[in-house]
Amino acid sequence: MAAPSVREPRQERSRATRRRLLAAAVRCLAEVGWSGSTVAVVAERAGVSRGAAQHHFRTREDLFTAAVRYVGEKRLDDIHRRAAALPEETSRVEAIVEMFADVYSGLEFRAALQMWAAAAHDPALRAHVVPLEEDIGREAHRAALDLLGADESGPGVRESVQATLDLVRGLGLANLLTDDRARRGRVVRQWARMLERELDAAR
Amino acid sequence: MAAPSVREPRQERSRATRRRLLAAAVRCLAEVGWSGSTVAVVAERAGVSRGAAQHHFRTREDLFTAAVRYVGEKRLDDIHRRAAALPEETSRVEAIVEMFADVYSGLEFRAALQMWAAAAHDPALRAHVVPLEEDIGREAHRAALDLLGADESGPGVRESVQATLDLVRGLGLANLLTDDRARRGRVVRQWARMLERELDAAR
Repeated sequence: MAAPSVREPRQERSRATRRRLLAAAVRCLAEVGWSGSTVAVVAERAGVSRGAAQHHFRTREDLFTAAVRYVGEKRLDDIHRRAAALPEETSRVEAIVEMFADVYSGLEFRAALQMWAAAAHDPALRAHVVPLEEDIGREAHRAALDLLGADESGPGVRESVQATLDLVRGLGLANLLTDDRARRGRVVRQWARMLERELDAAR
Repeated sequence: MAAPSVREPRQERSRATRRRLLAAAVRCLAEVGWSGSTVAVVAERAGVSRGAAQHHFRTREDLFTAAVRYVGEKRLDDIHRRAAALPEETSRVEAIVEMFADVYSGLEFRAALQMWAAAAHDPALRAHVVPLEEDIGREAHRAALDLLGADESGPGVRESVQATLDLVRGLGLANLLTDDRARRGRVVRQWARMLERELDAAR
């Protein structure tokens, strides 16, 4: 990353530092897990002084939950953008399930997973992670409904969309230790067929 | 657990010690995660001397992967037993998906998850965990096919059953930090309806 110009306004510089810290935090979590992920390690990886890092994030929990939130929101934006750019003739359901499956199998998911695993036996971290996950889950559900053009008042629609998000989380887990892309593609195609039929029937 | 009787044959005593270590290892992993789970901690929890523990399991990786394998196989046996006892009039597909979802939301899943999270950034552990997961995954898939009475040669059947196991893994993750039972029940019912239709169509 280029060094910030001295003429860059202070606020923009501060935002760039923050973004750099968030991106480094996600990579760090994904690569070394929670126990090796500290504010100091992230500051060093981001090329930011420890003091500056602590100015942005008071605690370790603040930094990492902000990082998982930031990449989660960015990924949902990406999905929206890519979905808007899909050619008319594409099977939208399959393309959209595939996008969610890809996101939940990437770096962000690996980072979030490390945080969930640690939060399972760390009550202080859990208190930060549970509301974060509720927010991200709600936003992902709303995005999936919107992109699939699904109406939640139809019978089973809400649960089918929830099942889709549970499925892609499971697929993300299956991709953690080995490259599961080929199998994942087949599972996604089959589920997309089942989901499309279900959404059509509820219309 | 009762102290072993002095008249108990040595081999049976050794098997009981082994089982005690395996059960303690799974509880330990689920409760404190990988970094706090050592052979010494498990030996103490199991009420077994450290030397006896090391006689059974040479390394930490051996102990914990054996533990995850042991409970995984025991749980599949449980599912088979419970499925055989289902009343004739039950919706078998829903009951079976529910059993898998319950298993993947329990203590064993939490233990396995801690091991997966650690293996993601520990190559030595990963080398133990990947073949273990392949074995358990294969056995779970075979059990699900068998219990659902599904024939893999039908179109989409293999992928629908794989998707079911991916779904229950995702549901397990959703249950890690909060009690997700009520929502899980609704998702499982909807999934079972869709799966049953798919399996019927392939027959």
